[in-house]
Amino acid sequence: MNEELQNKLKKAAAVRVADYVKDGMIVGLGSGSTVRMLVDELGRRVQEEGLQFTAVATSILTATQAKKLGIKVVDLDSVDSIDLTIDGADQVDSNFNGIKGGGGNLLWEKIVAINSKKIVWVVDESKIVDTIGAFPLAVDVIPFGSQHVLAKFNQAGFEPVIRKDQAGHVFKTDSNNIILDLHLHKITQPVELADELIKTVGVVEHGLFLNMVSEVVVGKESGPEVLVNPNLG
Amino acid sequence: MNEELQNKLKKAAAVRVADYVKDGMIVGLGSGSTVRMLVDELGRRVQEEGLQFTAVATSILTATQAKKLGIKVVDLDSVDSIDLTIDGADQVDSNFNGIKGGGGNLLWEKIVAINSKKIVWVVDESKIVDTIGAFPLAVDVIPFGSQHVLAKFNQAGFEPVIRKDQAGHVFKTDSNNIILDLHLHKITQPVELADELIKTVGVVEHGLFLNMVSEVVVGKESGPEVLVNPNLG
Repeated sequence: MNEELQNKLKKAAAVRVADYVKDGMIVGLGSGSTVRMLVDELGRRVQEEGLQFTAVATSILTATQAKKLGIKVVDLDSVDSIDLTIDGADQVDSNFNGIKGGGGNLLWEKIVAINSKKIVWVVDESKIVDTIGAFPLAVDVIPFGSQHVLAKFNQAGFEPVIRKDQAGHVFKTDSNNIILDLHLHKITQPVELADELIKTVGVVEHGLFLNMVSEVVVGKESGPEVLVNPNLG
Repeated sequence: MNEELQNKLKKAAAVRVADYVKDGMIVGLGSGSTVRMLVDELGRRVQEEGLQFTAVATSILTATQAKKLGIKVVDLDSVDSIDLTIDGADQVDSNFNGIKGGGGNLLWEKIVAINSKKIVWVVDESKIVDTIGAFPLAVDVIPFGSQHVLAKFNQAGFEPVIRKDQAGHVFKTDSNNIILDLHLHKITQPVELADELIKTVGVVEHGLFLNMVSEVVVGKESGPEVLVNPNLG
C-alpha cells in the first residue's frame, strides 16, 4: 500500500472512530500517526460543534497536540477511570492480540488502557495480520544495567536492537526509559512471551496488548470496517 | 535491641563479610546502613592493605561513598558479570526469602543481584524472622498513573503508603520512580505475591528477593554467624 492511500484510509477510520466520543466522556487518547488524525478531528468537533469531553493523553506529544486544539487535557491521576480509550496499533490479529510501541509510548499507553472501561483501536487495513510479530516488539527497559537485558534477549534469540532517535542518540521514553525492539518475526505464543518479558528484571513493560480491545476500526479501501471482539464486546 | 548494640552487631558482621572480597574481584555493593559499614571497611583495606577490586554500586549514595574511599567504581553496563554482590536486607526467613527496599534502592539492587554469580547478605540478628512481612514491602512504581496502582493495592488490602522523604516530599528513587510501601504484616505466599506484583501495570519491581542469596552473615551477640543456603551453597 502506498503512503498516500494508507493516509487516506487512516484518515477515514480516524474520522469514523471520533464518533465514539460523546459529550461528558473522559477519553484516553493514544499516540501515533492515526491518533494524530483522530485528535485533529476531535479538535475540529470541539471548535466547530461544541463537543465537550475531557482527555487523558498517553504521551506528551498527544497532550501537546490536544491542548493546542482546545481539547481539555487532565492528568490520569486526576480521574477515577476512563470511559473510552482510542489508540492505534502496529499489528492486530484475529484474536484481538496486538503489538504497540512503534512510537515508543507503550508504557503510558498500557497504563491508560488498563484504567479504561472500553478500548477501541483505529488502524488501516495493513495492520491486520494472521500472526503478530513481523513488526518489532518494543520493550520498555530501565537504563541502569540495560546492556544485560540486551544480552539476555540476544541469548534468547529475540534479536534485540536499542532504539535510536533520528539524530542517532539512544531514544528516551516520556518516563526516561529506553526501548529495545525485538525482532521476533512470528509470535505464536504471546501469553507465554508476555509472562517471560514482564518477569525479566529491568523490563518495565512490553508492547503486547493481549485481548484488551473491544473494537477495532479498520480503514479499508471500501470504507471503515468495525471488528467487534466477541470476548469483550 | 537498642541501637548501639544493633550497630555493634552490624559492624562486626560487616567486617566479617568484607573478608569475602578478594583481589581482582568484581563486587556488587548494596545499599543501606550495614553496607555503609562494609564499604568503610573495604575502603580501609584498599588504603591500608592494598586490596584491589572493582565495585559496581546499587545506588548513587553507595557509589559516592565508595569513590570517596578510593574504591574503583564502574558502571554495571561496563562489566560482563559480577563475581560477588554483598547487600543488606530488611528481613530474611529460614528459606532465604527476604525483603529489601527500606532504603528505596530495590530496583538497582535487584538488577545488580540477578547479574551476580554469588549473593551474600549481611544483617544483624533482628532481621532474621520466621515469616517475612512485618517490615513494609517496597514496590517501585512509575509515577505516571501511580494513584491507580495505589487504588488497586488498597482494594487488594495491601495497605499501601506512598513513601515520603524527610522533608515530606514524595520520595524519588535513583531511576526517578516512586515507592509504595505495602503493609502486609505476614507474607505467607511470597512466590504468588511476587507474580501478582510484577504483573501489575505500572509496577517496575518489588522488594521480594526469593531464594537468591547463597549466604547470610548474621551479626549476633555471640559473634557473626554464617547461614548457608543449601539450595545455592
